[in-house]
Amino acid sequence: MTTNGGTRAPLYIAGTGTSLPGDPVDNEQLDKAFGISAEWTDLFVGTRTRHFGWDLGTGEVLHTLADLCTEAADRAAASAGTDLQDLDFLVLATTTPDRLLPTTANEVADRLGLDHLPTYQIQAGCSGAVQALDLARALIASGHRTGLVVGGDVTARFLDPHRTPADLPAQELINYVLFGDGAGAAVVSAEPEGEGIGLRALLHRFTGRGRQPGQIIDWDGPVRRTPGRTMLSEDYKAIEDNVPGLASEICWELLDTAGWTPDDLDFLLPPQLSARMTQRIVETIAVPAAREISCVVDTGNTGNALPLLQLDRLVRQMSSGERALAVVVESSKWIRAGLALEKHAEAEANR
Amino acid sequence: MTTNGGTRAPLYIAGTGTSLPGDPVDNEQLDKAFGISAEWTDLFVGTRTRHFGWDLGTGEVLHTLADLCTEAADRAAASAGTDLQDLDFLVLATTTPDRLLPTTANEVADRLGLDHLPTYQIQAGCSGAVQALDLARALIASGHRTGLVVGGDVTARFLDPHRTPADLPAQELINYVLFGDGAGAAVVSAEPEGEGIGLRALLHRFTGRGRQPGQIIDWDGPVRRTPGRTMLSEDYKAIEDNVPGLASEICWELLDTAGWTPDDLDFLLPPQLSARMTQRIVETIAVPAAREISCVVDTGNTGNALPLLQLDRLVRQMSSGERALAVVVESSKWIRAGLALEKHAEAEANR
Repeated sequence: MTTNGGTRAPLYIAGTGTSLPGDPVDNEQLDKAFGISAEWTDLFVGTRTRHFGWDLGTGEVLHTLADLCTEAADRAAASAGTDLQDLDFLVLATTTPDRLLPTTANEVADRLGLDHLPTYQIQAGCSGAVQALDLARALIASGHRTGLVVGGDVTARFLDPHRTPADLPAQELINYVLFGDGAGAAVVSAEPEGEGIGLRALLHRFTGRGRQPGQIIDWDGPVRRTPGRTMLSEDYKAIEDNVPGLASEICWELLDTAGWTPDDLDFLLPPQLSARMTQRIVETIAVPAAREISCVVDTGNTGNALPLLQLDRLVRQMSSGERALAVVVESSKWIRAGLALEKHAEAEANR
Repeated sequence: MTTNGGTRAPLYIAGTGTSLPGDPVDNEQLDKAFGISAEWTDLFVGTRTRHFGWDLGTGEVLHTLADLCTEAADRAAASAGTDLQDLDFLVLATTTPDRLLPTTANEVADRLGLDHLPTYQIQAGCSGAVQALDLARALIASGHRTGLVVGGDVTARFLDPHRTPADLPAQELINYVLFGDGAGAAVVSAEPEGEGIGLRALLHRFTGRGRQPGQIIDWDGPVRRTPGRTMLSEDYKAIEDNVPGLASEICWELLDTAGWTPDDLDFLLPPQLSARMTQRIVETIAVPAAREISCVVDTGNTGNALPLLQLDRLVRQMSSGERALAVVVESSKWIRAGLALEKHAEAEANR
């Protein structure tokens, strides 16, 4: 069931939920706030709206990561018809936890009223949701029955409402139009309950040996050891050069592991770095018969939430026997990740 | 094998390794640098030395978390006689990653020359090493054979060499004498290889519902949303009130799961918050026949490294058939954690 040597223990997606804070913020609003030409964003980034958990004018934080993750988790449990008390574990993936300690995973567990299960917080970038599902699969293989997987990210500590456009170099300005806040969640189970979407293959493999990071996100404690260093940077050249090819390789490896051909695919969930990049990747992967499930145009790049936001859109469209492939590339230090999913033949009748 | 409902899949500790940066720093040196009375530290904290990966005079960082984790991992692999290329996964636990992205887990994988395996980074406090072993056990149950577990923490972003003692309130000063830098690692396997110390029970359960955090560790990006807030704080009253009792409950739950009585115990690895607190906890647990394995007196509180530093001391003393209990309390948002370990009867002959 995996390309990493694990067993074929089954894992099913029983239900999904998402949370996006406040109203969508469009390119005209960002143009007004930060002087980034809306036309330029439309043309070169392609993202039309995103959501922020903080006030664009004052910077006040209105929705924390724990807020978003708790809401997404609640919705996933409702969609799966799962009583939260029946969960055997919680895995939460993020780049941007509310604090280093307590973990956001434990804050979410507390708010959900849970006090009986192990909780895990995965530090990850774009591949975090797949990593969390990978660990969920292992926990199910070790005897657990039902678990909660959550992924989310927030931008409040990296986007500054008080900086004037003239202060911002182009490579920093672009972060303001790329990223958004959000969380997604899925209830997973050992049996085909709820949506009953089965995991047929999962890829999660570090591939960054000797490669420079494509993205760096740094943090400070009260003591700033190297003041003035860049805290958030992307190497877009490396990303543009590497991601489409890696995405294509991931696609073929997953198809091979699942024993599928491109013609078997009904849906493709491509990487969601920006709308334009997703377009390029889809053209490179070239499985035209598969319907594309993307959300980056509406949500921006929400990091650890993204594959779960796509999954939430997938479950609304997927019929019995249909197959989907999700492809994820983590460019920070390069991880190959992805999922091959198939709706259980009897799942629709069970609902 | 677990108190969380997982299966009885076996897990063995094949080898261990540690890394502590530079020379030990004693209480007299801290007295000189920060004006914290060495006599007071001796009396109320009990920790005698700790290691810092940064220069006490200039603050310059000389050893990053990735440096320490790589060294500990290399030593664990050597001790187990494991070729790094045979590892099936890497799990690294920390509160204080070098960056948010790339993860320190991936930095370590790159330095170890690995490019074939899944890597996971767990965000956790004192229970991180147990959480990492918990996930390793699930990954082994899902079909993997051998993995690397690493835990470590560094203090450079939280202890300020340039602050004068008069600036520091007592509740912040104490952090300077409590914490230290370090990393520990263990190679784990599905079969009794190397040291062949088997995991007979593992406890990892969130227990923070409705409880205030006993420890808060916060971080900043380039945008400081709430300047001047406390970034590192402990509620020592809550810790003193709760930890000894919780430690005792964890001990009894683990004994029960393993099917052991207190008389079966040859070793006790108690929580390592401070030497004085450890002393109180050992008195509360009250299993006098078990030899205590502690390291906090020499290393200070090294967070995610601690249980692995204790484990490294344990493997040097443990004989065939002997039994040990490790007890861990995470006070940030309260986690019960621990291990019941037994040296495989044939392991000694195999070495």
